[in-house]
Amino acid sequence: MQVHVWAEDRPLPEAEAAMRRLYPNGIQGQIASFLRAEGGFEVTAATMQDPGQGLSPAVMDGVEVLVFWSHKHWRELDPQRVDELQNRVLDGMGLVLLHSAHASLLFARLMGTRTQCLRWREADERQRVWITAPAHPIAQGLKGEYFEIPADETYGEYFEIPQPETQVFLTQAAGGEVLRSGCCWTRGRGRIFYFSAGHETYPVYHQPEVQRVICNAVRWAGQGAPLPAWPGWARQAPPLAGPG
Amino acid sequence: MQVHVWAEDRPLPEAEAAMRRLYPNGIQGQIASFLRAEGGFEVTAATMQDPGQGLSPAVMDGVEVLVFWSHKHWRELDPQRVDELQNRVLDGMGLVLLHSAHASLLFARLMGTRTQCLRWREADERQRVWITAPAHPIAQGLKGEYFEIPADETYGEYFEIPQPETQVFLTQAAGGEVLRSGCCWTRGRGRIFYFSAGHETYPVYHQPEVQRVICNAVRWAGQGAPLPAWPGWARQAPPLAGPG
Amino acid sequence: MQVHVWAEDRPLPEAEAAMRRLYPNGIQGQIASFLRAEGGFEVTAATMQDPGQGLSPAVMDGVEVLVFWSHKHWRELDPQRVDELQNRVLDGMGLVLLHSAHASLLFARLMGTRTQCLRWREADERQRVWITAPAHPIAQGLKGEYFEIPADETYGEYFEIPQPETQVFLTQAAGGEVLRSGCCWTRGRGRIFYFSAGHETYPVYHQPEVQRVICNAVRWAGQGAPLPAWPGWARQAPPLAGPG
Amino acid sequence: MQVHVWAEDRPLPEAEAAMRRLYPNGIQGQIASFLRAEGGFEVTAATMQDPGQGLSPAVMDGVEVLVFWSHKHWRELDPQRVDELQNRVLDGMGLVLLHSAHASLLFARLMGTRTQCLRWREADERQRVWITAPAHPIAQGLKGEYFEIPADETYGEYFEIPQPETQVFLTQAAGGEVLRSGCCWTRGRGRIFYFSAGHETYPVYHQPEVQRVICNAVRWAGQGAPLPAWPGWARQAPPLAGPG
Repeated sequence: MQVHVWAEDRPLPEAEAAMRRLYPNGIQGQIASFLRAEGGFEVTAATMQDPGQGLSPAVMDGVEVLVFWSHKHWRELDPQRVDELQNRVLDGMGLVLLHSAHASLLFARLMGTRTQCLRWREADERQRVWITAPAHPIAQGLKGEYFEIPADETYGEYFEIPQPETQVFLTQAAGGEVLRSGCCWTRGRGRIFYFSAGHETYPVYHQPEVQRVICNAVRWAGQGAPLPAWPGWARQAPPLAGPG
Repeated sequence: MQVHVWAEDRPLPEAEAAMRRLYPNGIQGQIASFLRAEGGFEVTAATMQDPGQGLSPAVMDGVEVLVFWSHKHWRELDPQRVDELQNRVLDGMGLVLLHSAHASLLFARLMGTRTQCLRWREADERQRVWITAPAHPIAQGLKGEYFEIPADETYGEYFEIPQPETQVFLTQAAGGEVLRSGCCWTRGRGRIFYFSAGHETYPVYHQPEVQRVICNAVRWAGQGAPLPAWPGWARQAPPLAGPG
Repeated sequence: MQVHVWAEDRPLPEAEAAMRRLYPNGIQGQIASFLRAEGGFEVTAATMQDPGQGLSPAVMDGVEVLVFWSHKHWRELDPQRVDELQNRVLDGMGLVLLHSAHASLLFARLMGTRTQCLRWREADERQRVWITAPAHPIAQGLKGEYFEIPADETYGEYFEIPQPETQVFLTQAAGGEVLRSGCCWTRGRGRIFYFSAGHETYPVYHQPEVQRVICNAVRWAGQGAPLPAWPGWARQAPPLAGPG
Repeated sequence: MQVHVWAEDRPLPEAEAAMRRLYPNGIQGQIASFLRAEGGFEVTAATMQDPGQGLSPAVMDGVEVLVFWSHKHWRELDPQRVDELQNRVLDGMGLVLLHSAHASLLFARLMGTRTQCLRWREADERQRVWITAPAHPIAQGLKGEYFEIPADETYGEYFEIPQPETQVFLTQAAGGEVLRSGCCWTRGRGRIFYFSAGHETYPVYHQPEVQRVICNAVRWAGQGAPLPAWPGWARQAPPLAGPG
């Protein structure tokens, strides 16, 4: 399965030192690394600073799942790229959106809502991630009813998203927020998973449980070889009843 | 709209004094009282100790919404009553299940799961109830993104329920649990709402926000006059295409 | 409840004579007329040819439900109007989309998919509309398991929409198509209903069952007075646990 | 993946000759045969006439997916077996229910509704099966927007089931019925798929598209090794906030 991991990779000045220390190869590099270690994936990685913003048709052709991490600079993503990516999802490319990618135009477009709207704060808080869909492929291999992230940025409700088709995780912050944090949708022939964990100043993507979730999500979102031109609507289906 | 409020009304010895002080007319009496004050409802109330366990056909005929509060003694409810109530729901009677009624056979039957399974403790904890479906009728009239219950028994995930058709509320306990606490389903022609608040030793049903939720839920669950014998399946629908 | 009924009202030349004969006051006029007869609604009506394309802020302020019928000319609707309408829905305005409004940018934006994609033909075919959610408010008052529309344009699957939150109707065409034809979603605080019936060259909006569906849908989609500025996110909720 | 295929295998006298001719090894034998040919499955098969009705704990231990075909004699299945099977599903066993198994107590228990209720007739009719969830694993490998079954028993709405979590297929009968015919749910840790095709007097399970659907469904419903005792609820989760 061909997977492309993309990150904005332009931290705010106050976050840059922490991020470069935690992720010397970038967030995209870290995620690509554990996906390769998992096996079964052909992985490429890119950032907004690469040619074509790392998302050109030449790069994206053949990609079966896109892992997407964006933050403050999402407005600088070429709108034509967003159109192209939305169409790729509708045509069957899987999409795994991480953390502050909730604010991206790509996510907002696919949801139809103002997905940037949620409650947030940075408070070095412990997060408890509860499993509410134990039968779902994305929850497989996790032990126990919940796992914890020692510190992460806090996101909370009300989060303006359509009700998820499957609510896989709920995250509770030590300070008193709750978030629908692991959510599945399908749009057209594409599968979408949003997972809220992973502010750039915390080592969240080094944590085994988070890596398990992302590996599972990529596998769930990928579909082998979706038909490139489905459906091929004729204007008319043959009569169902009749001499035939 | 004709509403029947039913409560088990057999507290455990250690809870009896607190409950009788908080609810001198029983939980059923308190709920009936604020429903009457809301207006638009014809309200009756009964307990497990009444003739026919308070749920006989004579009592239930014509009831459009049943508000149901049970606890430890749910196993003593006559199984034939449970069969009758399940059928009434499938035929269009609304059902509002409160707090420990999650463990009732009636709820388990309608859900198909072991709904008694959840995490719980009594710890006099503050509960924060977040609204995740602001467009839903049951959330109307609440101010702000959440409201709090100063103290209640704590329920937490994993709660073995089918994914709700609408997730109206999530409740977060001060000690570190989260629950899908306000949940809608339909079964047959009946609408079902479960709401987790209301242990008998706390004045939860005296709180205006909780009363707002229950009044809204009763109104949502009721449907006027559901057809008594729908659908009247003939074995065969007339041909769709053809000379006709 | 304040309702605005809008129609494109620019039939193609080959459809104009039939439409003007069937709907001398326009489709918007016909729908406004039976909503007024139903009672409980304050109804205004407009077309794309009115000032501000009939959808200016002056017209829309205070509108609680918009009934929207568009067809071939949806691309001519000012994109800023579409932005405004999308935001109004997310802020709580109900939206009832009829027939060829499936192709409108407004619907596509709220769904995140290419909603113009479905199978269609004009064949003067009988349509059978099956009720699959008998408990839903939009199905109330219909008699029997289905009703029929003697002739209408045929729409069929695959229809690129997110899976509906409630599937209220399925429509079957005599010639051999089926469509998820009555579908509910919520987006933000707004409720959305799409109903496929009503090509302009057939007297579909004169049929009592169709009028029943639209009256029910408007009532379902309206919510009285949604809070204008909800949620008013502070960056931080007070701690849940702790001294407080 | 360990799969057990079970069929009632007691046709009514008028159907026996046709069934024995079409399925000399029984329906269970035919399904087991194409699952084995697909590969990746360890397949056993049994009938109601086998010891323990073919569903004893000795047979079921270790089974990851049960394929279940029942008909008129479902009332003769030992209720304790039904209890055991329901618990196995809730604990993670996948369940694929075929055709007249809609009437089985096992299905009704897991759904909470009177699943035997649907419209039916035997009319040697052509059936058209439309794909409404092209992104779903169960639809993979099918070509085109629909496939047809030359003749099968007709089932139609209203079908008393909870709204599916994913509506994968809709089936349209030549004579004028439509059915939500391919439906997914999860209950507890178990995944359930109902598929309506396959009356015993037609060669439906010899058709490649139907075999594709069933192979996909078994793979989707299976989950490797679900934890045998999850969740292991302690009464109390450790505090989330606090010194820790």
